[in-house]
Amino acid sequence: MDKYTISVLVENNAGVLSRIAGLFSRRGYNIESLSVGVTEDSKISRMTITGFADEQTLEQIKKQLNKLIEVIKVVQIQQEDSVYRELAMIKVKADNSTRSSIVEIANIFRANIIDVAFGSLTLEVTGDEGKIEAFIKMIKPYGIVELLRTGAAVLQRGEHGI
Amino acid sequence: MDKYTISVLVENNAGVLSRIAGLFSRRGYNIESLSVGVTEDSKISRMTITGFADEQTLEQIKKQLNKLIEVIKVVQIQQEDSVYRELAMIKVKADNSTRSSIVEIANIFRANIIDVAFGSLTLEVTGDEGKIEAFIKMIKPYGIVELLRTGAAVLQRGEHGI
Repeated sequence: MDKYTISVLVENNAGVLSRIAGLFSRRGYNIESLSVGVTEDSKISRMTITGFADEQTLEQIKKQLNKLIEVIKVVQIQQEDSVYRELAMIKVKADNSTRSSIVEIANIFRANIIDVAFGSLTLEVTGDEGKIEAFIKMIKPYGIVELLRTGAAVLQRGEHGI
Repeated sequence: MDKYTISVLVENNAGVLSRIAGLFSRRGYNIESLSVGVTEDSKISRMTITGFADEQTLEQIKKQLNKLIEVIKVVQIQQEDSVYRELAMIKVKADNSTRSSIVEIANIFRANIIDVAFGSLTLEVTGDEGKIEAFIKMIKPYGIVELLRTGAAVLQRGEHGI
């Protein structure tokens, strides 16, 4: 089973997310992350779905997606031809004795501090999966209060769109 | 109808996304964006859902979500108490005559250039909805090849988690 990433352009209507999620769940296809937002055309949304599947299952997923009437386009993204980004927000415990070390780690990872409270710092970081995970690993010992990841956002390299 | 943002902690299983999306679609609840990714505990995912609903509908949404067995916690996020971020990736047409103007706009918005091709630049920017939309507006005249937005990612301000 390999990790797959697919980009799906869909018509932006109420039922489409449900139909796509239902397709994966009914057939037991694995989803690791899903993000969906509007594109430059507000009638069209773009989903990025990642998960694990063997080649045969992945072919089925693509075929099934293409059958849905709201699906405009399905493209499997090859990691080597793409730029992969994810946004993570992390609220971490911080006091006078630890705050400066946390800020130092944030600077190394070019993370931004987006909220400061008496006992915590909230950080925002973008990067590929490896960077996000390395950052979380460095921050974890200070005590993570909450952590949010948007899931993968992926565009193909080069000048063409999907 | 006001814009709502809710954070939902869920058990990380195959069917949960489908059940939540199905709930919204069956009842005709509006979803504008949805993002889901794992938290610090890999068995638990965190969803951020935004959309438009009147107060009564929103109460129903929260009640219905709480009834789902995989749902651990549902919290409505008030904009004034939260930090809101979204990640956008934009591939824009660029040639020798326009590249430097695009880079200048990117610098103003602290966007990063993540891919350069002969006829395009790919940019990454994070910020709240207003910033993302202002950035898109500035970049649009150059010709957007493709645009991806992750949807809202929101954490409450202060030192406590949800």
